[in-house]
Amino acid sequence: MKLVTISSATGRSVGVVDAATGTVRDVGGLIPPGAGLLEVIERWDEVGPLLRDRAGELSAQPLESVELLAPVPVPRRNVWCVGKNYRDHAVEFGRSGYDTPDRSDALPERPIIFSKATTSVTGPDALVHPGPTRELDYEGELTVIIGRGGRGISREDAYDHVWGYTLINDVTARDVQRDHKQWLLGKSFDTHCPMGPYAVTADEIYDVTALELETTVNGERRQWAPLKDLIFDIPELISTISAGTTLLPGDLIATGTPAGVGLGFDPPRFLESGDVVEVTVTGLGTLRNRIA
Amino acid sequence: MKLVTISSATGRSVGVVDAATGTVRDVGGLIPPGAGLLEVIERWDEVGPLLRDRAGELSAQPLESVELLAPVPVPRRNVWCVGKNYRDHAVEFGRSGYDTPDRSDALPERPIIFSKATTSVTGPDALVHPGPTRELDYEGELTVIIGRGGRGISREDAYDHVWGYTLINDVTARDVQRDHKQWLLGKSFDTHCPMGPYAVTADEIYDVTALELETTVNGERRQWAPLKDLIFDIPELISTISAGTTLLPGDLIATGTPAGVGLGFDPPRFLESGDVVEVTVTGLGTLRNRIA
Repeated sequence: MKLVTISSATGRSVGVVDAATGTVRDVGGLIPPGAGLLEVIERWDEVGPLLRDRAGELSAQPLESVELLAPVPVPRRNVWCVGKNYRDHAVEFGRSGYDTPDRSDALPERPIIFSKATTSVTGPDALVHPGPTRELDYEGELTVIIGRGGRGISREDAYDHVWGYTLINDVTARDVQRDHKQWLLGKSFDTHCPMGPYAVTADEIYDVTALELETTVNGERRQWAPLKDLIFDIPELISTISAGTTLLPGDLIATGTPAGVGLGFDPPRFLESGDVVEVTVTGLGTLRNRIA
Repeated sequence: MKLVTISSATGRSVGVVDAATGTVRDVGGLIPPGAGLLEVIERWDEVGPLLRDRAGELSAQPLESVELLAPVPVPRRNVWCVGKNYRDHAVEFGRSGYDTPDRSDALPERPIIFSKATTSVTGPDALVHPGPTRELDYEGELTVIIGRGGRGISREDAYDHVWGYTLINDVTARDVQRDHKQWLLGKSFDTHCPMGPYAVTADEIYDVTALELETTVNGERRQWAPLKDLIFDIPELISTISAGTTLLPGDLIATGTPAGVGLGFDPPRFLESGDVVEVTVTGLGTLRNRIA
């Protein structure tokens, strides 16, 4: 099932998308009053079957006729992110001189985990505002949405805790990322975490490692990689993060970006006003944002 | 005013403390139904005067008779933290070999900002569970509580956005902090962010730079510093974080720790089961936690 968060006259609602017909059904009447997609995910055992059985009875409207917000417009806490999780990107980033850890050691021995502030989240089609940076960059990423929370989750059980997937563009102020050593600030500017367009349930993805990720800027392919190229795969990320820290339903884990970011070019190709960045993963749609 | 979050039979309530008599008044009846301290802070313009005028009419009970939770038991997002923000601590941490950034450059040129996950927050008097680390360490820190949110806050206006102060112990798994390069994971284990005992309104603190911070382990003084020793002071931290990122009411900014952490000793003196850590700042009380 593909779910979306819709901006409506009365606030926000949840929709179920039929990608084949390009339509969406507002399922606000089927879920608890006031609930958003976050609450739907938390109560999925109860709400999921209801949506599956009854959403089809509701009237459909063209997807183009609604305004989509980020699937989780206000996460309960910062978005978990993974650094240098594709081999060639780890090399390009190490080579850039912008990295903080041991630069000689381009491939991380353990997952590098940081976060983006909640206020950086914005919707598909929303404008990305550069903010106080001269070096605005893009990072297309497959993002895991946690369903059942937990601590000490084993690799073997990890997929039982995955509710589904979405896309984010881990927009980065490279100068701020470099100058402040820890990456949180350079990753957290307002509108620097476009998310969507859909939250896709895990049962729609037969094998996540078989998916492919592509990022284009103004239609030119900049990033492409199969998800099987992740250095630390999804079970490893979930088991690493949850080793000492309880994962919560609705937690978002952006799994890292492949080679081809703007910083990786010589000279760097940072984003400029009017550029359009599109992140696509097989079956998850395309996240498209223009730079203000 | 000193506010606390109280664990009650029906859940949580908010209390106003009279430190002189060692008593607390449950003000749950004066605030919006279901509101916690976070909502009280968000609606302070309206709720503050009410508490000031009418809390005294309510019956007081001994502070020892209630169970205190962290003032903000479930923050809206990760706790903002500042690394290496006292000169001597920057030197001891640089010397340890555990640091990620340029080790030769012991003093940061710009604030180093990272975060702790919301689930790490625990109360005063609560047990700290080590979790999967062999190198458990303490960091006593003065913590700013944001009142009015905003972006692009100037140094000059920064204190207008401070609602008040509390204490945290920025408990750290040093091996995890080192091995994962970015610090989020090693800072985010469950129970590794004891907070409290009080949330103290800014009007009680005539000059925050005149305060002094002390951390003891089993009664032995390990850390001591005047708050005027912060490399990046509170206005600088607020203006730096808010430059591109909107600060929210209730946001917590832990301002960094002085020299004297366990890692700074040769050999290191990490925490062990049964150790009691006490963090004290003038006028803000003592945050006391035992290691499980």
